Amino acid sequence: MGGDQAPGAIVAGAVHAVRAGLSVLLVGDEAQLAPLIPRGVSLPIQHAAEVIGMDEPPVAAVRRKKGASISVALQAVAEGRAAGAVSCGSTGAAMASALFRLGRIPGVSRPGVSAVVPRVDGGQLVLLDLGANVDCRPEHLALFALMGHCYAVAGQGLTAPRIGLLSNGHEAGKGNEQVRAAEGLIRALPVNFIGQIEPTEAFRGGCDVLVCDGFVGNVMLKTVESTAEVVSRLLKEEIVRYTAGRLGAWLLQGALRRFRKRTDYAEFGGGLLLGVKGVVVIGHGRSDSGAVFGAIQQASQLASHGIVAQLEQTMAAASAAEG
Amino acid sequence: MGGDQAPGAIVAGAVHAVRAGLSVLLVGDEAQLAPLIPRGVSLPIQHAAEVIGMDEPPVAAVRRKKGASISVALQAVAEGRAAGAVSCGSTGAAMASALFRLGRIPGVSRPGVSAVVPRVDGGQLVLLDLGANVDCRPEHLALFALMGHCYAVAGQGLTAPRIGLLSNGHEAGKGNEQVRAAEGLIRALPVNFIGQIEPTEAFRGGCDVLVCDGFVGNVMLKTVESTAEVVSRLLKEEIVRYTAGRLGAWLLQGALRRFRKRTDYAEFGGGLLLGVKGVVVIGHGRSDSGAVFGAIQQASQLASHGIVAQLEQTMAAASAAEG
Repeated sequence: MGGDQAPGAIVAGAVHAVRAGLSVLLVGDEAQLAPLIPRGVSLPIQHAAEVIGMDEPPVAAVRRKKGASISVALQAVAEGRAAGAVSCGSTGAAMASALFRLGRIPGVSRPGVSAVVPRVDGGQLVLLDLGANVDCRPEHLALFALMGHCYAVAGQGLTAPRIGLLSNGHEAGKGNEQVRAAEGLIRALPVNFIGQIEPTEAFRGGCDVLVCDGFVGNVMLKTVESTAEVVSRLLKEEIVRYTAGRLGAWLLQGALRRFRKRTDYAEFGGGLLLGVKGVVVIGHGRSDSGAVFGAIQQASQLASHGIVAQLEQTMAAASAAEG
Repeated sequence: MGGDQAPGAIVAGAVHAVRAGLSVLLVGDEAQLAPLIPRGVSLPIQHAAEVIGMDEPPVAAVRRKKGASISVALQAVAEGRAAGAVSCGSTGAAMASALFRLGRIPGVSRPGVSAVVPRVDGGQLVLLDLGANVDCRPEHLALFALMGHCYAVAGQGLTAPRIGLLSNGHEAGKGNEQVRAAEGLIRALPVNFIGQIEPTEAFRGGCDVLVCDGFVGNVMLKTVESTAEVVSRLLKEEIVRYTAGRLGAWLLQGALRRFRKRTDYAEFGGGLLLGVKGVVVIGHGRSDSGAVFGAIQQASQLASHGIVAQLEQTMAAASAAEG
């Protein structure tokens, strides 16, 4: 029920997923959802009477609306009736509901939110935390390094993902107090840590996972989206300026359409809640049916690769190593 | 002497400025600079025997190398022989040298670095701090709001620039501790403060000046540059994929060239040191001659609009208001 184009785009994405061989359970208002399902598509609905809006204070809303679609969906994950959940609604509500219905993995003091963005070298960059934690202590950054490692292994298929710590440079003396303190903690962890790294180097392929506090990560992700928007607009302006440009643009329309799709961060599937006992993927609010399908595929892949079990083992090992 | 293409691009940019009617003093190694000046161009050289490299610890290097080109240039500003200075070398060295040679404006506890980036709506966004201060207290953010106000008035010609405080949202409860504490301080200042704002809204035109701590601002600026690079690469890939695309690209080459120029942040002229007693513009290390010319124009404009006097008056008024 969440997202700018809900429930139409959500159901269309789910139908796409069913046709691609995945098994999907829709959760939401049955009266709205049922008419959207094409004849012959097996897409069961679990009715949820309430919806949590984007502007509601998440924790209070989750407590008050026991029958909210996000909570009913995460209850299905908690009971093993679903391998994972996808929501295009409020990230805060999904996190609050996940803490309440699924609980935290032992050793995870602060669950996080991560997402994947494209790098200049054609690879992908796992970013975390993206906003769940706006006032982090250095030990939280160390926790994000462990969780990001597990995501890159289970979600990206990397064996020894390079973990970078977001900073304003890599030279000695760079970083703020928080980052310098976290650097020592992450060095002691069983991950492939490359140290402090600035965005320029990370986007060029210098690391696979970029760890930062939630305030900085949220600003960074929104800056990526905004810059893609600015750059696309400047390109359009230059193209329509001349007739040759207009003719060129007509010939280029296929390329420009694909370019827009690749630079629209709504197409990137979604963020992932990390540290809770279940797979919860958060799609962008602007998600269209293709983005919803992508998020469902991502949830399915993360569940089948056992990211939760991997995180549980990693946290247990880290806690044993600490004594 | 600073910058990836120095001294060639620097001298070429200075020659361009002289031909455009500006008066320029070159500071650096005379033996290297003199042969680069075309016959008939009046471009005096003040010899400086030393150069501070990008990787030298700035404060120590400025102390040790009394004859470094940046220090000799800023001494010319201090003595009134130059209205302002431009450097494409180390920002840290420029700041250290500015503090030593020019000093701080009374009331400025922490000078900052600001820069201008393009917005989606075609306007410009003044960002500060961009890295001079990586561990800020809320009162430093309030100082940046005052300094950003003066920059937007003197540099952009705005009368009541809208000041935004960078955050992860604008709703109640958003922001980290630092930002929430700064919000109250900025409300008490004589500036047009619009409150907390996220990057998405700021880039769409929600404010003219975006205030943040230096660590976050540095990460943000580098993320803008990196995303522009990623987006340009994706566009190129899509264009060369098809023959129609290749033909279209040939017709579009003028538009694409201008697009690259407009999205290359080296073209944006430079950052500005704010809070020191003089105009000091820092060009990007990648600056070509056009970017150097832009930075010289910017320094000239800021000096003729009296940004330093404006800052002195603003700081004095703020200090008088505090009692």
